[in-house]
Amino acid sequence: MMENLITAINENKNDTSLRAIILSANGNVFSAGHNLKELQTSAGTDQHKLIFNKATELMRSIILSPVPVIAKVNGFATAAGCQLVATCDMIICSDKSKFSTPGANFGIFCSTPGIAIGRSVPKSKAMYMLLTGEPITAQEAYESGLVTKVVPADKLDEEVNRIVEQIKHKSRCVIALGKEFFYKQINLNTLDAYRLGEDIMVQNINSNDGQEGIQSFVEKRKAIWNHK
Amino acid sequence: MMENLITAINENKNDTSLRAIILSANGNVFSAGHNLKELQTSAGTDQHKLIFNKATELMRSIILSPVPVIAKVNGFATAAGCQLVATCDMIICSDKSKFSTPGANFGIFCSTPGIAIGRSVPKSKAMYMLLTGEPITAQEAYESGLVTKVVPADKLDEEVNRIVEQIKHKSRCVIALGKEFFYKQINLNTLDAYRLGEDIMVQNINSNDGQEGIQSFVEKRKAIWNHK
Amino acid sequence: MMENLITAINENKNDTSLRAIILSANGNVFSAGHNLKELQTSAGTDQHKLIFNKATELMRSIILSPVPVIAKVNGFATAAGCQLVATCDMIICSDKSKFSTPGANFGIFCSTPGIAIGRSVPKSKAMYMLLTGEPITAQEAYESGLVTKVVPADKLDEEVNRIVEQIKHKSRCVIALGKEFFYKQINLNTLDAYRLGEDIMVQNINSNDGQEGIQSFVEKRKAIWNHK
Repeated sequence: MMENLITAINENKNDTSLRAIILSANGNVFSAGHNLKELQTSAGTDQHKLIFNKATELMRSIILSPVPVIAKVNGFATAAGCQLVATCDMIICSDKSKFSTPGANFGIFCSTPGIAIGRSVPKSKAMYMLLTGEPITAQEAYESGLVTKVVPADKLDEEVNRIVEQIKHKSRCVIALGKEFFYKQINLNTLDAYRLGEDIMVQNINSNDGQEGIQSFVEKRKAIWNHK
Repeated sequence: MMENLITAINENKNDTSLRAIILSANGNVFSAGHNLKELQTSAGTDQHKLIFNKATELMRSIILSPVPVIAKVNGFATAAGCQLVATCDMIICSDKSKFSTPGANFGIFCSTPGIAIGRSVPKSKAMYMLLTGEPITAQEAYESGLVTKVVPADKLDEEVNRIVEQIKHKSRCVIALGKEFFYKQINLNTLDAYRLGEDIMVQNINSNDGQEGIQSFVEKRKAIWNHK
Repeated sequence: MMENLITAINENKNDTSLRAIILSANGNVFSAGHNLKELQTSAGTDQHKLIFNKATELMRSIILSPVPVIAKVNGFATAAGCQLVATCDMIICSDKSKFSTPGANFGIFCSTPGIAIGRSVPKSKAMYMLLTGEPITAQEAYESGLVTKVVPADKLDEEVNRIVEQIKHKSRCVIALGKEFFYKQINLNTLDAYRLGEDIMVQNINSNDGQEGIQSFVEKRKAIWNHK
């Protein structure tokens, strides 16, 4: 499953007609995370290392994807499934969705999910999820910053499509440059981030689509993007 | 008082029957922080250094405690008392509780409380608390991420007990491993955190209680934890 | 405009009668950010570098100002205008205000605004603003931590004045010391922050206004600040 997701996320990444990726699920479980049976000792430590290495690669693929990755959640996202959701650029969920990290109930603390969740919600909420294993509602997930928006289940497609339309009106390479820089700067201290940010802005302005965007604004017309 | 708290938090830390620590107070003041009289010049700079060193040791004791530390707040938590609350793993408070950092009113800016609060709430809220000294309500504390949950005063014990019950159903050493890793990884950049996280997951899986947890899941029975 | 703001923020910074700075605007646009016409290639790369260097200098001036800088927003704050708002110590806005980072619509991703916004709101909200360019309401800005408070437009002056009054009751140099330390420690890991924080507390206590504050508390009288 992780292999398939990594392949799906990466295989069209240089195709300029790919503008956004939506992760969604059939049924009322978005993702329940790792298969615990794969984690029995009989599988061997090398196999366990491979599994978590693969999970990191999946998260990296989302972060490094040149197009926005949107989680469309309508149900339960638990453990590494909750990590997957939290790692997406945007998370739109239905009001029936729930989020939890119940690993400790089965002796396996959700340590790697905590990396993504601890960077999305306040510490006191992340700790509640990790230490109790209790689910939080869609509304609580919104209040704590885990999800971008909560909508009624029958408006979920509409809302995600609206966001994708917004992305499609923009230049693909400008979105890619901006997304890449966001994840780079967020790990730096503020002044180092600004120093790097100045260079990125100048680079963006002097790109083809940067100049076309400004030109179209000045001439009050629709921009015609090159996308690369 | 700080000495007593440090001793109380640490003295049973290797006793496997200790599963959680609850910090609570009698009366309507949870904690008003440092005693300003101890901070007069007559006490001497060495004494001042000792006091703030002790405060850091108290915060470290909470962070390093192998069991979850829960603040149960029913009243005012101010200055270093608010720092104490913000440092706990989870914070459950009554709807009558209030939180403030009014040190600057008395010439002593709440700089050390700001370390804990600035890592719990958005900058614009932390700055409001620190620069104006004004209290925020329990509801505002929830909205800004400072507290985990707000409940009516007469449900406070029930809610905290519910959380402790959730913790008691789990393996003590798995909780300890997960808590320790959370505070370690949150100071790292995301990819370094994942690199370390992979190792922690493999270590957790190959522990006694990790395997017992998986085994119990596969066999659809209750896990019997070793706790160490 | 940026030059004027930098000068206005810095020119009275050593005047002890200056106690707070309020950034506000006439009309229903707080700030729309950079002038895109200045970013055409005809201006030249050196000119572009200068512009973004100047913007960083403006943000630094706010962060390094010894007095609190408050954004009083009653309208639209977009792109670098939204960055300006997010960089202020406190942000008080009317319920009609809106916030957006629509740069990508014009081929220029709001990368530098994202530095300030990404440190104020959860990632999934920052990414929504940056990738879609859609505005968020005052209420959404409050929920995500971008603004400190939302009030009806006709209460905006009253609320900002109330905050300024709170600041004026305190010692100028204590506020300056506390603000400087906050922005320093927030970029450190928690334990390094506490180590530095202990020294700052001892320094604060042994300052004139630190001792006067404690003395006034002990003697139950109003403090008479020296302010330096």
